[in-house]
Amino acid sequence: MPQKKLSGIEVAQHNTRGSCWIIVHGNVYDVTDFLDDHPGGSKIILKYAGKDATQEYDPIHPPDAITTNLPPEKHLGPVEPDTVEKVEIVITDDEKARQERMSNRPPLDEILNLHDFEAIAKQVMTDKAWAYYSSAADDEITNRENHAAYHRIWFRPKILIDVTEVDWSTTILGHKSSMPIYITATALGKLGHPDGELTLTRAAAKNGVIQMIPTLASCSFDEIVSAAEPGQVQFLQLYVNKDRAITQRIVQHAEEQGIKGLFITVDAPQLGRREKDMRMKFTDEDPSEVKQAGTGSVDRSQGAARAISSFIDPGLKWADLDWFKSITKMPLILKGVQRWEDALKAYDLGLAGVVLSNHGGRQLDFARSGIEVLVEVVSKFKEIRGITFPNEKFQLFVDGGVRRATDVLKAVALGATAVGIGRPFLYAFSAYGTEGADKALKILNDEFEMNMRLLGAPTIKDVTPDMVDISNISSHIAAIPGDRLYDSNYESMQHAKLREVKSKM
Amino acid sequence: MPQKKLSGIEVAQHNTRGSCWIIVHGNVYDVTDFLDDHPGGSKIILKYAGKDATQEYDPIHPPDAITTNLPPEKHLGPVEPDTVEKVEIVITDDEKARQERMSNRPPLDEILNLHDFEAIAKQVMTDKAWAYYSSAADDEITNRENHAAYHRIWFRPKILIDVTEVDWSTTILGHKSSMPIYITATALGKLGHPDGELTLTRAAAKNGVIQMIPTLASCSFDEIVSAAEPGQVQFLQLYVNKDRAITQRIVQHAEEQGIKGLFITVDAPQLGRREKDMRMKFTDEDPSEVKQAGTGSVDRSQGAARAISSFIDPGLKWADLDWFKSITKMPLILKGVQRWEDALKAYDLGLAGVVLSNHGGRQLDFARSGIEVLVEVVSKFKEIRGITFPNEKFQLFVDGGVRRATDVLKAVALGATAVGIGRPFLYAFSAYGTEGADKALKILNDEFEMNMRLLGAPTIKDVTPDMVDISNISSHIAAIPGDRLYDSNYESMQHAKLREVKSKM
Amino acid sequence: MPQKKLSGIEVAQHNTRGSCWIIVHGNVYDVTDFLDDHPGGSKIILKYAGKDATQEYDPIHPPDAITTNLPPEKHLGPVEPDTVEKVEIVITDDEKARQERMSNRPPLDEILNLHDFEAIAKQVMTDKAWAYYSSAADDEITNRENHAAYHRIWFRPKILIDVTEVDWSTTILGHKSSMPIYITATALGKLGHPDGELTLTRAAAKNGVIQMIPTLASCSFDEIVSAAEPGQVQFLQLYVNKDRAITQRIVQHAEEQGIKGLFITVDAPQLGRREKDMRMKFTDEDPSEVKQAGTGSVDRSQGAARAISSFIDPGLKWADLDWFKSITKMPLILKGVQRWEDALKAYDLGLAGVVLSNHGGRQLDFARSGIEVLVEVVSKFKEIRGITFPNEKFQLFVDGGVRRATDVLKAVALGATAVGIGRPFLYAFSAYGTEGADKALKILNDEFEMNMRLLGAPTIKDVTPDMVDISNISSHIAAIPGDRLYDSNYESMQHAKLREVKSKM
Amino acid sequence: MPQKKLSGIEVAQHNTRGSCWIIVHGNVYDVTDFLDDHPGGSKIILKYAGKDATQEYDPIHPPDAITTNLPPEKHLGPVEPDTVEKVEIVITDDEKARQERMSNRPPLDEILNLHDFEAIAKQVMTDKAWAYYSSAADDEITNRENHAAYHRIWFRPKILIDVTEVDWSTTILGHKSSMPIYITATALGKLGHPDGELTLTRAAAKNGVIQMIPTLASCSFDEIVSAAEPGQVQFLQLYVNKDRAITQRIVQHAEEQGIKGLFITVDAPQLGRREKDMRMKFTDEDPSEVKQAGTGSVDRSQGAARAISSFIDPGLKWADLDWFKSITKMPLILKGVQRWEDALKAYDLGLAGVVLSNHGGRQLDFARSGIEVLVEVVSKFKEIRGITFPNEKFQLFVDGGVRRATDVLKAVALGATAVGIGRPFLYAFSAYGTEGADKALKILNDEFEMNMRLLGAPTIKDVTPDMVDISNISSHIAAIPGDRLYDSNYESMQHAKLREVKSKM
Repeated sequence: MPQKKLSGIEVAQHNTRGSCWIIVHGNVYDVTDFLDDHPGGSKIILKYAGKDATQEYDPIHPPDAITTNLPPEKHLGPVEPDTVEKVEIVITDDEKARQERMSNRPPLDEILNLHDFEAIAKQVMTDKAWAYYSSAADDEITNRENHAAYHRIWFRPKILIDVTEVDWSTTILGHKSSMPIYITATALGKLGHPDGELTLTRAAAKNGVIQMIPTLASCSFDEIVSAAEPGQVQFLQLYVNKDRAITQRIVQHAEEQGIKGLFITVDAPQLGRREKDMRMKFTDEDPSEVKQAGTGSVDRSQGAARAISSFIDPGLKWADLDWFKSITKMPLILKGVQRWEDALKAYDLGLAGVVLSNHGGRQLDFARSGIEVLVEVVSKFKEIRGITFPNEKFQLFVDGGVRRATDVLKAVALGATAVGIGRPFLYAFSAYGTEGADKALKILNDEFEMNMRLLGAPTIKDVTPDMVDISNISSHIAAIPGDRLYDSNYESMQHAKLREVKSKM
Repeated sequence: MPQKKLSGIEVAQHNTRGSCWIIVHGNVYDVTDFLDDHPGGSKIILKYAGKDATQEYDPIHPPDAITTNLPPEKHLGPVEPDTVEKVEIVITDDEKARQERMSNRPPLDEILNLHDFEAIAKQVMTDKAWAYYSSAADDEITNRENHAAYHRIWFRPKILIDVTEVDWSTTILGHKSSMPIYITATALGKLGHPDGELTLTRAAAKNGVIQMIPTLASCSFDEIVSAAEPGQVQFLQLYVNKDRAITQRIVQHAEEQGIKGLFITVDAPQLGRREKDMRMKFTDEDPSEVKQAGTGSVDRSQGAARAISSFIDPGLKWADLDWFKSITKMPLILKGVQRWEDALKAYDLGLAGVVLSNHGGRQLDFARSGIEVLVEVVSKFKEIRGITFPNEKFQLFVDGGVRRATDVLKAVALGATAVGIGRPFLYAFSAYGTEGADKALKILNDEFEMNMRLLGAPTIKDVTPDMVDISNISSHIAAIPGDRLYDSNYESMQHAKLREVKSKM
Repeated sequence: MPQKKLSGIEVAQHNTRGSCWIIVHGNVYDVTDFLDDHPGGSKIILKYAGKDATQEYDPIHPPDAITTNLPPEKHLGPVEPDTVEKVEIVITDDEKARQERMSNRPPLDEILNLHDFEAIAKQVMTDKAWAYYSSAADDEITNRENHAAYHRIWFRPKILIDVTEVDWSTTILGHKSSMPIYITATALGKLGHPDGELTLTRAAAKNGVIQMIPTLASCSFDEIVSAAEPGQVQFLQLYVNKDRAITQRIVQHAEEQGIKGLFITVDAPQLGRREKDMRMKFTDEDPSEVKQAGTGSVDRSQGAARAISSFIDPGLKWADLDWFKSITKMPLILKGVQRWEDALKAYDLGLAGVVLSNHGGRQLDFARSGIEVLVEVVSKFKEIRGITFPNEKFQLFVDGGVRRATDVLKAVALGATAVGIGRPFLYAFSAYGTEGADKALKILNDEFEMNMRLLGAPTIKDVTPDMVDISNISSHIAAIPGDRLYDSNYESMQHAKLREVKSKM
Repeated sequence: MPQKKLSGIEVAQHNTRGSCWIIVHGNVYDVTDFLDDHPGGSKIILKYAGKDATQEYDPIHPPDAITTNLPPEKHLGPVEPDTVEKVEIVITDDEKARQERMSNRPPLDEILNLHDFEAIAKQVMTDKAWAYYSSAADDEITNRENHAAYHRIWFRPKILIDVTEVDWSTTILGHKSSMPIYITATALGKLGHPDGELTLTRAAAKNGVIQMIPTLASCSFDEIVSAAEPGQVQFLQLYVNKDRAITQRIVQHAEEQGIKGLFITVDAPQLGRREKDMRMKFTDEDPSEVKQAGTGSVDRSQGAARAISSFIDPGLKWADLDWFKSITKMPLILKGVQRWEDALKAYDLGLAGVVLSNHGGRQLDFARSGIEVLVEVVSKFKEIRGITFPNEKFQLFVDGGVRRATDVLKAVALGATAVGIGRPFLYAFSAYGTEGADKALKILNDEFEMNMRLLGAPTIKDVTPDMVDISNISSHIAAIPGDRLYDSNYESMQHAKLREVKSKM
């Protein structure tokens, strides 16, 4: 029975802390009691008290966040659209400057590598989006180590191999991929671009790679699946809900929709402290408000990450995996394995594989990089079970820190089936939308062609362990502190100089 | 028999190098002969010649310093309070600017980690206080190495452990602690805040952690003990006096007052040269004065540390420990052990434990970090005595360089019972008083909760050696000097750029 | 039968994208259909549509590039010289500033080392030439590692050896060389100086060293050979053409002309992505043009390197080496060997030697340095074949990263016969022409004399493996990421300061 | 028979390149034919053509340089003093600024460590003197490595040792020294201070340490010996002359004068290229002059070092040592040994010891530091001859890079009898004369007292090998090149900030 629609005029009167209604997607909600529980703080809600908050709500919340979190009696029903006052969007000077930078982006042809997307995105994204995407745990050591670890691996290329034709396609969980990579799951795509994760779906289709759909997508799961081309392969990344019924519904729905692999996140029983993201919060808060609320029980300074993840079950355990096997036939992969002992457990439980990952450095700082753990896992599996990789039955993936096809080929040489790439695609679509994501894949493709030739590897099977020198993979060297007095006394050597000091630089 | 009180008028006449009296805490002292022996220089005393020096005296001297150091005949007796001229405190421009910075501190909610306290404290403390707290020995290599060493230890976290409930409380010398840390002893608390060490006593009570009271506190021992809540556990750090009777009095008094552990400092037979602190001295000296005195036998450029520590006995030796056992039943712990051989001696003597520490890098530069020595000690005890850690009978502690709960958990994984934290609390209370110290503990608490979950460790007992990779702990790498000519010729790679160079940064 | 000459007036009418003729070296070519295939982009050609493009063409193309790449029917024949409109060269402000810098070069006497040439060249070369010479693959890690690797090798010099006379001459493939180096092959010499590779031929003659002539020289092979002094030894570097008939012609012509060694490049089945060079491209393109062409199939952003190298055969393989043996008696050396397995294959095939090289870091990023591979090769040959180096029968060469005679002597101590030096000579002649190249060799000569004495080595034979410490040669250490919060809190120590802060610096 | 004195008027007429006379120390010399042979260039001589050059001559030449280098017939005899035109010294603006800086030196009390002297000296010395003292070979890698190597050695101090009395005196070649150091030989002391090496003689006397007199002192040997206190011990550093008669005269004269040890320099058959020193040359040259002379055979760009050292014999060899034994009974020590094999030869020849040194990094770049060679030597002597150190019969010394008493104590722990310190004393007397040198020794003395206590070592004998961790001594780590694109994208973490950004820094 259709509800009677509420009038925008009435809604507009509930615009105080004492009675606070908001409109989202044409429905009215009474959030008065929720104000202090809002992980993003009350101020941002109060700004829209009595008004339409959809535009603010959309990029940061999963579509069903409000209906899930508010008790049904607070769902006051639909509003009459033409009675709602338009929320005037005030464009700040900062935002104007940002939009000007956006219009000054260099043409895509000038983007030569994945680093370039990040350099442009950093300048054209909103501060909030940049903070959420780029931030990582604690001192962000692991975040950067993920990339640095690849720099401790060096190549031993072969020569005089006929590389007229080179083929870097592979199969992942039995599905063809044009490259040994996949687009891994990352949350809140709409923060970077209005089309959110759909940009990735489209670019993946064009380039024959697999997309892993995130639980915390800004677009709904069904939207993302619908955007796929016929036959396009997609995986699903899963945060397990404390309410297993919800999880079961998600998993079975995904399987029905043709999802080909279920990647269960196991490195995030609680989402990490990401301080860049947390600091960003304060610019959105009224300081006096913050202080008043200081006595309350809600920690409101947790940034976007914590705001959207309270449903995740910290009680998820090994014993739960049998239940997953019972509710789905999709291959099960653990995402976030960080030691060989746990990879071996997954293998012994008959899972389809593991992703050696530390969640992009966003969870436990000083967790080792996936590529380093890969070396450990392959070595121990060989020693204990006599198993070698790559292996169809149990596949190893890594993610984190990848920027070049050479990074990927190092992982492949060491036994990985494929490598997940996340942030670079976020930066690509944040700066250039679908075309950016497409270009990112094309750049990787070009790099693969080049590097397969230079390695002397006609196919992915020819990229073998003897092609890499990993003797330094576990060297976690922190140089001892410098001698500042000695060093500042040292006068640096100088080059010969032009007669007139009108140098180019 | 009460002395006749002296008149302030009379005192005021002794205001020259030839006859110099000062008033401290309402008593008059003749310091004429002491001028050249004052470790802090004569100028600072002469500034108060004939006047009340209490305000200057208080933060830098232990309460009984003047009575201890001046012979009784120089104690001229009490002064009539209302005859004493008020010392007018001139507020310099620098001090005004400092106070303005103080009033611009961000609210505590914006302090996200222990580093933040230091960043704020550096700006709102007096230069003298900052110099004394932050300085360390020689080139401050060990001081920084203490922190750097933790960065050579990496985690091997477990997944799929039920971490719904995590508990990081522990027991230290048989006493409950809410976290595996304690507030270690640091001197001269009033330099940073008028309430000095009491801020720590109060914060410790609120958060269920143990405070170690320093011998060189600005507040008196009795004040600090009295400030404790009923049942609150406190330890005592002891500098051993050349006059053992004094030491015996201190120790037995402490035991009577309920102190639960005696930490005897063994790494400071002489207090270290701390050059930042020493340099600060010169701004307080009249250069001409310095030059005149250059011929004298007193080295007046030793900073606060040396000024307050001449009583410490450099003759303290292993054989003295029996005497300590004879005068107290408190558990005895050596603070400042720096090699396994000495830890083993302590064990064989039946002591209760050792603190592997280098005095925050303030004593011998190039001493190794406590965490590195911990690895050595645990390994050798296993090899030689078959003992493993943590161990109730003989407990290992480390201190120095800790800034994150992850640092603490690394030490715990390696066998430490708990970790001492010092400077971060100094910075916390210097910037925000008791609330700052409280917030520092709450931040650690939050970090422990997060990291116990991410490690997959429901309790402290589950934080085990296999959870850390310590293969690089002893890598004291000083990169060889750079090739300045080659490096300055190298033209760094550039990212793609916005069309108009109006970048955000 | 001589063709009728075309009139410049007629040519000038074909000045559009629809019909585009250009004049090169007095001949007219119809390049209309070639515009979109031009690896350097269409814009640069269109700029000269209907005009004489020789001046633009010369420095960047091998002399026969246009005749080879255009089908014969597009060769329209010679033009009447005096009917051709002179192309007016507009000198930009940038170019004027560059020429002024050129005239302000310091006198050669002030050039003290090879670094100096690079510092001057960087300022006086055109941006395009600098980009082409200095650029390397991907993130240019290998490029810089080539130099850095030498810094991990340290000397163990001998004392009290009579070094009144020291002699650092040697023989390379049986030919006398005044030093254990040779000038290795590098492309496009005219980018740096109008005399191109001839500057090197002349300097080599003066100093008794051997020049390796590049396939991609700006001067023709015959010019370079003709410029040699009687008896002057030259080698040839060969890129193998897909059309082996062309290769056979080149090789046999070289042998006839007296070339003494054939260095077949094996590390470049496809020329590397050199992003500095690629970025330079865009400044030469009309952005709108770039965008329009974006849909075409030609990737126009590949820089000079790719523009000139499409003929290279990626199908070259081990089996082809017999064919080379059948067409020439010159010693065959593989240039670009990067693992001991391939060096051993070359040895077993009876070749004369290998150059352990990664093409100056311009091909596969993260390939190891030649000097590191040398250690591996020497060790494995000893282990597997019992062979030691230096060895007349099979000679080892390295190149890449050399800037000092000490670098060369390290390679010699480890078993290299000689070391190839490339970029430093490019910079020397770009800044100072033939005199610069000559001075570069004289500097090396001076350094050799000095260092032979200081090593205690009267002759090259006395430079032995025990004179170097190579224990760190394989340490590919990437320091773990820094703790930015901790480090920025640390207040650096300060020196004593002048009373008035009017410091010299 | 006394020569007739020449008139200054006559001398003044020989003021051209065609006929050039100069006056030095009251004698006239015809240097016309010597102009092009002057290692310091002709311009500096021509500036004084016909004039008194004494003031310019003195600081840079050994007293007898001119009489030794000019043939007797060019010695024209004494000049009538009052006929000589006074050379007006023009004080440049730079020199005025320098003298002002000199007058602003901080008082000596503010000098806290040896680094401070260098910081002040750098500002108050002439550029020429600074360049000569501070410069080192090639890229100055070894120069800085000498210091860096000490940073790879860490302490393992003992606790609970009675260190009320500590004694760091020792004996060197049988002679008492108040500390385990000596002042090593360095050339051209008058460049830094008019009293030159005499400042060191006096400071050594006051502090009970031994001075090693350099062959290339600015003061004459006899002056330096005469300045010694009765009983003061001095050693002599010897550059061996090609003319052994001269060397014999020097050695036997030294022995007669009571010199207690002869340190024969063996690491300098030719003096190193020191480019900072060489570059300084050009500011003293007329550029046009330099260009003209470019064709001549004299390399005039060699700086002060080469200018004064052409007499050194590069033919000195092991066999010559017997001759030395035959001409003197002084203990013979080789200075500049750089590998254990040579130390062992010296031992087997019955010499008194060796200095493990690389000449302050001024000779062969990439020679290892003395402290690293010490570890090798001690280990090999133990292994091959069963000898341990310190050893009365054969003493080991090291020099280079020492700035702290802790550096010295590391060397002592490893087996060195004493450590030579050079540049720090040069900087001390350049900035503060004799008082500076004295203060430098007093600082070291203070540091020794402190560090003996902190090490738990009552005497030098108690400073034992187990007190140092040398596991990283041979780690010559050059970090691999950084990823500039990745790193510049990384946005550094930020601390909490004051509300108003009016920070202290």
